[in-house]
Amino acid sequence: MIFLFDDFGWQGPYTGQMKTVLAQQAAGIPVIDLQHDAPAFRPQAAGALLAALVPWLPASAVVVAVVDPGVGTSRLPCMLQADGRWFVGPDNGLLARVAVQATEMAAWRIDWQPEKLSASFHGRDLFASVAAMLATGRRVPATAISLAGLESARKPLAEVIYLDGYGNAMTGLPGDRLPPDAVIQIGGCEVCHAPVFGEVPEDAAFWYVNSLGLVEVAVNQGSAAQRYGLEVGVPVRIETVS
Amino acid sequence: MIFLFDDFGWQGPYTGQMKTVLAQQAAGIPVIDLQHDAPAFRPQAAGALLAALVPWLPASAVVVAVVDPGVGTSRLPCMLQADGRWFVGPDNGLLARVAVQATEMAAWRIDWQPEKLSASFHGRDLFASVAAMLATGRRVPATAISLAGLESARKPLAEVIYLDGYGNAMTGLPGDRLPPDAVIQIGGCEVCHAPVFGEVPEDAAFWYVNSLGLVEVAVNQGSAAQRYGLEVGVPVRIETVS
Amino acid sequence: MIFLFDDFGWQGPYTGQMKTVLAQQAAGIPVIDLQHDAPAFRPQAAGALLAALVPWLPASAVVVAVVDPGVGTSRLPCMLQADGRWFVGPDNGLLARVAVQATEMAAWRIDWQPEKLSASFHGRDLFASVAAMLATGRRVPATAISLAGLESARKPLAEVIYLDGYGNAMTGLPGDRLPPDAVIQIGGCEVCHAPVFGEVPEDAAFWYVNSLGLVEVAVNQGSAAQRYGLEVGVPVRIETVS
Repeated sequence: MIFLFDDFGWQGPYTGQMKTVLAQQAAGIPVIDLQHDAPAFRPQAAGALLAALVPWLPASAVVVAVVDPGVGTSRLPCMLQADGRWFVGPDNGLLARVAVQATEMAAWRIDWQPEKLSASFHGRDLFASVAAMLATGRRVPATAISLAGLESARKPLAEVIYLDGYGNAMTGLPGDRLPPDAVIQIGGCEVCHAPVFGEVPEDAAFWYVNSLGLVEVAVNQGSAAQRYGLEVGVPVRIETVS
Repeated sequence: MIFLFDDFGWQGPYTGQMKTVLAQQAAGIPVIDLQHDAPAFRPQAAGALLAALVPWLPASAVVVAVVDPGVGTSRLPCMLQADGRWFVGPDNGLLARVAVQATEMAAWRIDWQPEKLSASFHGRDLFASVAAMLATGRRVPATAISLAGLESARKPLAEVIYLDGYGNAMTGLPGDRLPPDAVIQIGGCEVCHAPVFGEVPEDAAFWYVNSLGLVEVAVNQGSAAQRYGLEVGVPVRIETVS
Repeated sequence: MIFLFDDFGWQGPYTGQMKTVLAQQAAGIPVIDLQHDAPAFRPQAAGALLAALVPWLPASAVVVAVVDPGVGTSRLPCMLQADGRWFVGPDNGLLARVAVQATEMAAWRIDWQPEKLSASFHGRDLFASVAAMLATGRRVPATAISLAGLESARKPLAEVIYLDGYGNAMTGLPGDRLPPDAVIQIGGCEVCHAPVFGEVPEDAAFWYVNSLGLVEVAVNQGSAAQRYGLEVGVPVRIETVS
């Protein structure tokens, strides 16, 4: 299966053109829109989000990951194999957290180039084709490299990494080691824990461990983004009350 | 075929994760995005919309329907068989109109649970898996129940149930028994009938029977939602001029 | 393969209903969402965009193209064969540029009608079914015609034809014969050339030849649409500095 993860949004012909390439070059292989509103121009935040999504992907997944403000400049195209799954995209830090959290991983610079490579849409011209090669078992000319951004990817990203359609603010903090009496500082305010939306009053703010296992700040039937003026990159801090 | 009907929007990884489950557990079965912007947090309005969509679904449809403000609380997960089609979702009134309009129907509480059930995303963890079981002919452990909200679902919902991307306001009123000289009261104003957009001047408001058979208030090449300050839940009233 | 190109947006059940028809009447044939935010109510601009997308479509493509402000009035339903590809939609100028740029083409008025034709959603009731017939090799009753709008489609459309999700403004001007020292006049301002986003400072405006081969005005990591108050239809002019 091939998965698309990028910041193209659903607007425009961009995703349609990538799927056209995949349908021609990897015919019969299912393509799933994993997410098209990854944090735009923010490979680090997008990479934290992608890393959180990986455990739900099948072992044979091929992921085309494109958050690529440097498209057309000297940043390298790369591919990563992490615990059996393949990831294809720009070497700008986007794939670093996926690599760091894997038990086994290896990375390559992609040496293959299409006949016609546009300056602004490597997703269609290069990455989709490489994903099709990997998904159909063809060899991709490539040279082993060490990925960019591995060092900073070793610590959790203590900031807002995604605002969803409801205005909930996902953070890069894993929820599994956080006690329920922890208080989250965000946007100059403090937010306490509740296990689930239905257990707080309408319009109340709270944090909870979301369905990806990350700490998320939400307002029941309202928008945390609006209330606290949040955007991607706003820092969060944990204060454990003792 | 499996159909997705929910209020997740196209943002975020939510739909992508549900499709990942379906592609793994119901491999080869087509999945169609019926609608992802059902009225958020409003099972009753969303249920009126879903009921209007049912006649266009194939007889073998399996529909995952999720508008679920009470996810993680005590509301039951349920499944409904209505005239041969299957519907899976929360028992919060969302499926009541589909049940009421069916010739033959039966409903069950779902007794099956996944090994790992998140508190906030039963669409991915529970409903998608149950839909995959139904679509592939596997048995789902379940107990017969009477659905919530059947009583109030027996009358048309005389309010705005959906605002589309153009700002047209769909109502829960069936159009088939309404005379063309009827006047619709909405947002403090009165709106007359026209058969189709192309027959009124640009910027004129009118009501018409939409492609689902429901009364809809529209402005030609403009937004009825903006002009009348409409949102889901605003009441509508029919005034037949005689 | 079947492609969807329209102005329905991703909201509402519209695309889901068209795919339901296609999945039933052209089972097993892949359907790709080429673009759902073509310029609304603007067949001419949408047609310029569609024509630019054609070179990336496979030779066997069947395209359902619907930008149809006159739905339900006397405009004809039509189908076009252009260099082997099929296009189905309203005869309102939308398909004229595809026809004009083709080496071989022929057009027909569609004489087939479904049993039940709604007044407002011919995409679902008529065009999707005709596309399914073409994709599965069935004959469509039709009469040869000359398409509307062929004359004006022979010159490039010197205006904004699409604003993408980032606020980049695509124009109808082909980029291949434009010298890099050309200056683009748009929204009362002048914009110079840069080859790619990464080579201008953050927040700088520039024009470049986009991935479809069209002249596009952009702001690096910002919105050209907001800065210059652009919308579809705003004229652009080339000034070659010499």
